[in-house]
Amino acid sequence: MNPLFREVRHNPLLWLLVFVPAVFAGEAFRPEAHTLLFVLSVLAIVPLAALLSHATESVAAKTGDAAGGLLNATLGNLTELVIALAALRAGQYMLVKASIAGAIVANTLFMLGASFLLGGLKHHLQEFNRTGARFQAGLLFLATVAILIPSAAGESDSPGAAVFTQQLSAVLAVLLIVAYALGLVFSLKTHREFFGSAGHAEEGEAPWPLGLALVTLAGVTVLVALVSEVFVASVQQAAIAFGMSPAFVGFIVVALVGGAAEMASAFSGARKNRLDLSVGIAMGSASQIALFVAPVLVLLSYVLGPAPMDLQFWPGAVVMVLIATMTASLVTNSGRSAWFVGVLLLMVYLVFATTLYLLPPRVA
Amino acid sequence: MNPLFREVRHNPLLWLLVFVPAVFAGEAFRPEAHTLLFVLSVLAIVPLAALLSHATESVAAKTGDAAGGLLNATLGNLTELVIALAALRAGQYMLVKASIAGAIVANTLFMLGASFLLGGLKHHLQEFNRTGARFQAGLLFLATVAILIPSAAGESDSPGAAVFTQQLSAVLAVLLIVAYALGLVFSLKTHREFFGSAGHAEEGEAPWPLGLALVTLAGVTVLVALVSEVFVASVQQAAIAFGMSPAFVGFIVVALVGGAAEMASAFSGARKNRLDLSVGIAMGSASQIALFVAPVLVLLSYVLGPAPMDLQFWPGAVVMVLIATMTASLVTNSGRSAWFVGVLLLMVYLVFATTLYLLPPRVA
Amino acid sequence: MNPLFREVRHNPLLWLLVFVPAVFAGEAFRPEAHTLLFVLSVLAIVPLAALLSHATESVAAKTGDAAGGLLNATLGNLTELVIALAALRAGQYMLVKASIAGAIVANTLFMLGASFLLGGLKHHLQEFNRTGARFQAGLLFLATVAILIPSAAGESDSPGAAVFTQQLSAVLAVLLIVAYALGLVFSLKTHREFFGSAGHAEEGEAPWPLGLALVTLAGVTVLVALVSEVFVASVQQAAIAFGMSPAFVGFIVVALVGGAAEMASAFSGARKNRLDLSVGIAMGSASQIALFVAPVLVLLSYVLGPAPMDLQFWPGAVVMVLIATMTASLVTNSGRSAWFVGVLLLMVYLVFATTLYLLPPRVA
Repeated sequence: MNPLFREVRHNPLLWLLVFVPAVFAGEAFRPEAHTLLFVLSVLAIVPLAALLSHATESVAAKTGDAAGGLLNATLGNLTELVIALAALRAGQYMLVKASIAGAIVANTLFMLGASFLLGGLKHHLQEFNRTGARFQAGLLFLATVAILIPSAAGESDSPGAAVFTQQLSAVLAVLLIVAYALGLVFSLKTHREFFGSAGHAEEGEAPWPLGLALVTLAGVTVLVALVSEVFVASVQQAAIAFGMSPAFVGFIVVALVGGAAEMASAFSGARKNRLDLSVGIAMGSASQIALFVAPVLVLLSYVLGPAPMDLQFWPGAVVMVLIATMTASLVTNSGRSAWFVGVLLLMVYLVFATTLYLLPPRVA
Repeated sequence: MNPLFREVRHNPLLWLLVFVPAVFAGEAFRPEAHTLLFVLSVLAIVPLAALLSHATESVAAKTGDAAGGLLNATLGNLTELVIALAALRAGQYMLVKASIAGAIVANTLFMLGASFLLGGLKHHLQEFNRTGARFQAGLLFLATVAILIPSAAGESDSPGAAVFTQQLSAVLAVLLIVAYALGLVFSLKTHREFFGSAGHAEEGEAPWPLGLALVTLAGVTVLVALVSEVFVASVQQAAIAFGMSPAFVGFIVVALVGGAAEMASAFSGARKNRLDLSVGIAMGSASQIALFVAPVLVLLSYVLGPAPMDLQFWPGAVVMVLIATMTASLVTNSGRSAWFVGVLLLMVYLVFATTLYLLPPRVA
Repeated sequence: MNPLFREVRHNPLLWLLVFVPAVFAGEAFRPEAHTLLFVLSVLAIVPLAALLSHATESVAAKTGDAAGGLLNATLGNLTELVIALAALRAGQYMLVKASIAGAIVANTLFMLGASFLLGGLKHHLQEFNRTGARFQAGLLFLATVAILIPSAAGESDSPGAAVFTQQLSAVLAVLLIVAYALGLVFSLKTHREFFGSAGHAEEGEAPWPLGLALVTLAGVTVLVALVSEVFVASVQQAAIAFGMSPAFVGFIVVALVGGAAEMASAFSGARKNRLDLSVGIAMGSASQIALFVAPVLVLLSYVLGPAPMDLQFWPGAVVMVLIATMTASLVTNSGRSAWFVGVLLLMVYLVFATTLYLLPPRVA
């Protein structure tokens, strides 16, 4: 277990692991202290997500290029998936959808923007592989169309509308997963020479031995699942206490908490002038959530949830995902970046966050 | 008449010509068998469209570059125009509009996407002239704005709304035709060196003698017009029999039937690694329908239709045309293509087709 | 005062200065002749705007690069600001908003399009610095998001909607000004080597002495303010007399009058094959109005207006600004231009103008 402890010692983020037992203690002794439990569970998820991320990468590094890429592509957003599953089982579909849309927006605007800004403050002009960014932007665009069309085509007051939306969502979920799978074939197999330098595995940290990585992967996933239960149960009450609208909590807070570990990697890559890494993590994570996590949740809702979940989002969320996709597509198109590009992306994110923060509760 | 028979022998598509007399026989003896008449007329239109297309190209090849380009640009979508005229005379404006929007979407997503996929499965990476694609995308964008603005600016319940929409549609129709004409001057005359390799005439098939081509052009146009009458009269009843929504029939079925001949040329070009040809046919045909066929139909509706037709589309159709234009513009921007680009375009088309197929009837 | 008189003699536009006293005479003796006062004030604003523009540039030329750029960036749209302030003080918020949106659209479509067309009719193919155009397009995109999100997220009939819109508008106004200031730091200081050739100061006209420039700046600003009062008071009545909708007057007429001087510079640059200058004026002016003039007006409305003004626009205006931004972004992306690009931009503008002209009055 040496490498695990060495990692904990060197990575200050992991000192937050002390909050994991604190969450369970709080849940046992103060189950009604929602605000406390919310804060504790946020603080506990961040280091767990970091461990999960490192464990996934270590397994991927051992299993070779194609299989490793596949692993990263399916387990890379395990934290987001586990949190969303907890919300799904609790029947909180509004929270599930807000966290999906919020994660796409946080990755394409906040993670990408902060990477460009942090990298640009240190380096005058940075370059990255635009083919990879274009590919991810194309996937994201498809997913955006898939959540835009149901709300544009349907009318909520027609008699068959609920059945229509549900059937359509199931078919679109399957289409998105097929597109994602074909995208993996394209980027990992038939045309992988175009996507060379954007892999997670080159991150420079030494991978763990396979046994340790697998045990960590399994154990930490269980811990994230347990902490997520507490998080989901406390989040709405805590939001009221903090004066935040439910839309703000799902869209901004949950998304930033779930993606904290990936953000740490993306920002560190940008500072080291390895912007390919940052763009790959940010855009890849967004497209993975849109084309894999979200449709899997729709399909799992038939088994796990109290009722099937559809892909119909609140119109404001659709507009935000659409704008985020377009912004990321425009901005990564040139393959070059300077600090102001980061400012632009962060400003768009701030416009969204401010709007959701000020939004009167009834609308959400 | 030798070249015509030789063509029929070598092109299996033309064997479908036996269905032309079958349509008229069916119409005479079983006028109430809508589903049968629908299927027969679809099977008859496909080979007629192929003949029409070859005859137009043969005339164009004989009349020199500029005049030939002009001919192609006005008669290239004669099949779509004749079908739409039949629907216009029958007062089925919903079908006319759905087939216009559907043809734009089918050309930019299905025809382009299948060309990229078929070409990409044979060739690792294909290149094409992006200046031509950008030019067509610009024209399409203008047409999209012209159908978006009336519905965004007007309010359907204000008193003068109907008059406003009608006046506006007539003016916009004239503007679009002027823009199309100026676009021809630009691409065929003042700046034709930028559009060199994207012409229909280089298709490799031997052109027919002028006399045969002109006779075929006239004769086949009459046949298409007669078959279209049967097609339009039977399509709605047949849709019910097949369990398809009217929106699906107009948007998907009519558009694919009308464009079958062009698709055959575009796909064959892509397989032969002449992607300029495929992109030119797909994008050129879409912009021609949007900036020439649609406005001409609006103006002709004052003479031929029971009442003037406007350019106001069902909001879902506007969104689909907008997305199709944006997708084609993004995808052709780089001038390079691989098989997955085709998958992305086809997936967007599948999202549309699924939505329209599942749509409850009342909404359309 | 020699240079001022020499300028007046050589620039026929400035002969229109005789209309300045005519406006005040008309206001004194025929205060009820709204149509006359409207025409006189339009004719008087055009030469005043030209003087203001030249005075600003002369001061900028004397004060060195960074300070001069800053001056141009804050006083470059002084005419628009003064006219809007007159409307603000009169409580005509509809007119203020229409003139803001109209100025953005007029700059990105009409000014840019006419520059491309006029330049393209003389030169076969023109090139310009696309980095500068992309930067301005990025700023414009941010501003578009900031006016799109409030109307997409809010619901006008919920109880807290008015408070929400007002709070949000104030925060977004501050964000836009911060983004604009950071953009100036980026383009004038940290990365100014990328924006080299797009400055106003290289216009070729000899700058005035500093004293004359400052006196002109102060005096003409006062005159513009006085004439604007007459203009704002007469515009609605005159619109009725001319049969124009109020939306058309605010969006088209006010915007073209306010920008007349800049248009003269942009067109002359395009004819001289200095398209960088034209693109810089058109795009820079649009982004300055969106990110500086508009937010300053929102903040000033707390002090000067009868009630705070928000950033919520009529949906049609939001769509038009969005399309104008997208069009300018697509069109300037390649860094090359020919006459037909100008035609496309002008056609989009014509679609907007026609729609607003025909719009029934109640909708606006």
